[in-house]
Amino acid sequence: MSMTYDDFRKLGLAIDMTRGKPSPAQLDLSSDALVNCLRAGEFMSRDGIDCRNYGYPLGLPEAREFGADLLGVVPEQVVAAGNSSLELMHDAMAFGILHGMPDGEPWRNQSDVAFLCPVPGYDRHFAICAALGVRMIPVPLTGNGPDMDFVEAQVAADPAIKGMWCMPLYSNPTGEIYSADTIRRLASMQTAALDFRLFWDDAYRFHHLTEQKHTTLNMIEACAAVGHADRALVFASLSKITVAGAALAFVASSRRNVDWWQRYSSIRTVGPDKLNQLRHVRLLRERQTLEGLMERHRALLRPKFDAMTTTFSEILSDLPGVSWTAPQGGYFISLYSPDGLAKRTAALAADAGIAMTPAGAAFPHGVDPRDRHLRVAPTFPALDDVKRAAQGIALSLRRAFEERG
Amino acid sequence: MSMTYDDFRKLGLAIDMTRGKPSPAQLDLSSDALVNCLRAGEFMSRDGIDCRNYGYPLGLPEAREFGADLLGVVPEQVVAAGNSSLELMHDAMAFGILHGMPDGEPWRNQSDVAFLCPVPGYDRHFAICAALGVRMIPVPLTGNGPDMDFVEAQVAADPAIKGMWCMPLYSNPTGEIYSADTIRRLASMQTAALDFRLFWDDAYRFHHLTEQKHTTLNMIEACAAVGHADRALVFASLSKITVAGAALAFVASSRRNVDWWQRYSSIRTVGPDKLNQLRHVRLLRERQTLEGLMERHRALLRPKFDAMTTTFSEILSDLPGVSWTAPQGGYFISLYSPDGLAKRTAALAADAGIAMTPAGAAFPHGVDPRDRHLRVAPTFPALDDVKRAAQGIALSLRRAFEERG
Repeated sequence: MSMTYDDFRKLGLAIDMTRGKPSPAQLDLSSDALVNCLRAGEFMSRDGIDCRNYGYPLGLPEAREFGADLLGVVPEQVVAAGNSSLELMHDAMAFGILHGMPDGEPWRNQSDVAFLCPVPGYDRHFAICAALGVRMIPVPLTGNGPDMDFVEAQVAADPAIKGMWCMPLYSNPTGEIYSADTIRRLASMQTAALDFRLFWDDAYRFHHLTEQKHTTLNMIEACAAVGHADRALVFASLSKITVAGAALAFVASSRRNVDWWQRYSSIRTVGPDKLNQLRHVRLLRERQTLEGLMERHRALLRPKFDAMTTTFSEILSDLPGVSWTAPQGGYFISLYSPDGLAKRTAALAADAGIAMTPAGAAFPHGVDPRDRHLRVAPTFPALDDVKRAAQGIALSLRRAFEERG
Repeated sequence: MSMTYDDFRKLGLAIDMTRGKPSPAQLDLSSDALVNCLRAGEFMSRDGIDCRNYGYPLGLPEAREFGADLLGVVPEQVVAAGNSSLELMHDAMAFGILHGMPDGEPWRNQSDVAFLCPVPGYDRHFAICAALGVRMIPVPLTGNGPDMDFVEAQVAADPAIKGMWCMPLYSNPTGEIYSADTIRRLASMQTAALDFRLFWDDAYRFHHLTEQKHTTLNMIEACAAVGHADRALVFASLSKITVAGAALAFVASSRRNVDWWQRYSSIRTVGPDKLNQLRHVRLLRERQTLEGLMERHRALLRPKFDAMTTTFSEILSDLPGVSWTAPQGGYFISLYSPDGLAKRTAALAADAGIAMTPAGAAFPHGVDPRDRHLRVAPTFPALDDVKRAAQGIALSLRRAFEERG
């Protein structure tokens, strides 16, 4: 006889499935080598820069070159910064509000500023908008990226729309891969706001879960090719490649946007932590090294994703209106309940000891209008816990379904 | 026969006296130990936190405790952040503009926002104001801190004045030490703006140049004692204690302000680099260790400051209207020419191979109304270069004086 929700609840488990954190085993893949590759007395960069001292607000030249290699641009188009692309995305939006883009007024000079937000999306993107007072316009996703008919109509009509969040590859949390057609339309669309920007969060560029290493079109090239060279601000990070809390992040764009970034970020800082940049370029200097490392991440992650989707199949296949993603990369699975059952499912899971990201978190202001989306983050817990959690989540959804009768 | 400006110029030197950077010898005092004190596999904090992963936006608990010990507050009043207090000061002002202080509206909602700026002051403070559109009101310094009669009259009358820059100990660039009376008046003065903040940049708290380790009154206590607990935001940094580009910084204030900081900074970041925080608390856990380290900095710095002031005495003592500071701590010497000669002196020095901070840099918008202040930064060059540079600067000032006849 198979387990019921009540059976599961009696197990008294406590498993956290809330955040997309790498597991200790993933961190073990590089943390020892990372600290060992900067030894006492070895603080000079390739170019003779004393990385202990102030300076280089755009980052160590070799870190910028490394970022350029990763992102398919020239080093002059890359800023190598400190820990966390989230900080760079926040600051880019804050600079837009406070100072304006190079081709426009400070956004704070106008009463209404809006961003397009593909949904479900990354809760921290939306939290930045909410905190900074930027109106969010939800955009449906199609499976190949945002609904471009909708996007084109919106940006053409509304000059308050200053930008759009995009996660082109293995989107958080749907695993979306933007098609070449979607990307070309994003690059070429006519926008009422002349200082419109794509906030291109390429967080999962190297985070494949299958043998097929998906790629998306080079967005900076695509924009430049149609005369919109300044349109895309591309963000990337090594946080889920080396260590989550102490890696480095990049922003890449046109040289004009890099100059703009330098103008305002060098008011804020004398420069990033160049010792940590040195550690990273020494550890990962060859792109091949990075790709080899990502294979080892995949070996740890893939069984967790498989365990979730297998369990969902076993327990939920017969329920109408229930589906889930089987992402080919990234950090999340999206589980869809019938309309109106996501919150109840998360509450039941919590009662059974499984902490989930709050239902609705992947929508602006935390409100999923259909109350059906659940984001599941299987990366951090050990595989056995992931299996248990998948069971608990599936049984919670099943119970929610049955309750409604 | 003593050397003339022309003789000096013929030496064809090139010495950079522009920025307050620590010398390689100072960085050598701790950099090896700093990297060695975090070894492979030793990534858990005292409290069992895996410092490689995300989290702890207010910093590692033991780093906050260390900051609290240094700053004379409780850990709940301290945020331990990443590299550079400049970033914290910038963000505090940006948060004021974008979000407002806990007791007020966002500053961007009002047409005029002003800060009091003791002059000469730190050019990067003024650059933040200029970039963010904050009006700067220069305040004279008295030798015991800002002219408090002037300050009290200004803040009482003008609700646009939302804050004031203060460097209480060994101010950049005058070496000012704020008296207890000054500090008590700053804490207790009535301000027309109810959300007024002192931006208390305690950059040189441990940077003594003499055997007398000066201290200033605990500003957070002084404010709390008169019912203005939220008035002071205290900034401090380990950048000139360990390594300039890769240390950590603190902000300390009331718990209410710390909550405010957390609310907005955790929109921006998932947390600081905790591995680097761990390095620092392991290296400096005892405050005595830090103070011992500062003695070794002093041993390197004091001869440079002495060389400058001795040379100024030898070459400039007979010139009317010329004076200089002999600071008891900090990173700078202020050299005063007769009115109208500072720019000319810097230009002559540049011609003779001595790069100086631009004359006027220590004033809002770079304009010294009397054109008489020069900031000299003797910390970075080797002692022989400092001696040469002092000679070159003094001979340049002498030449400027003679040119005017």
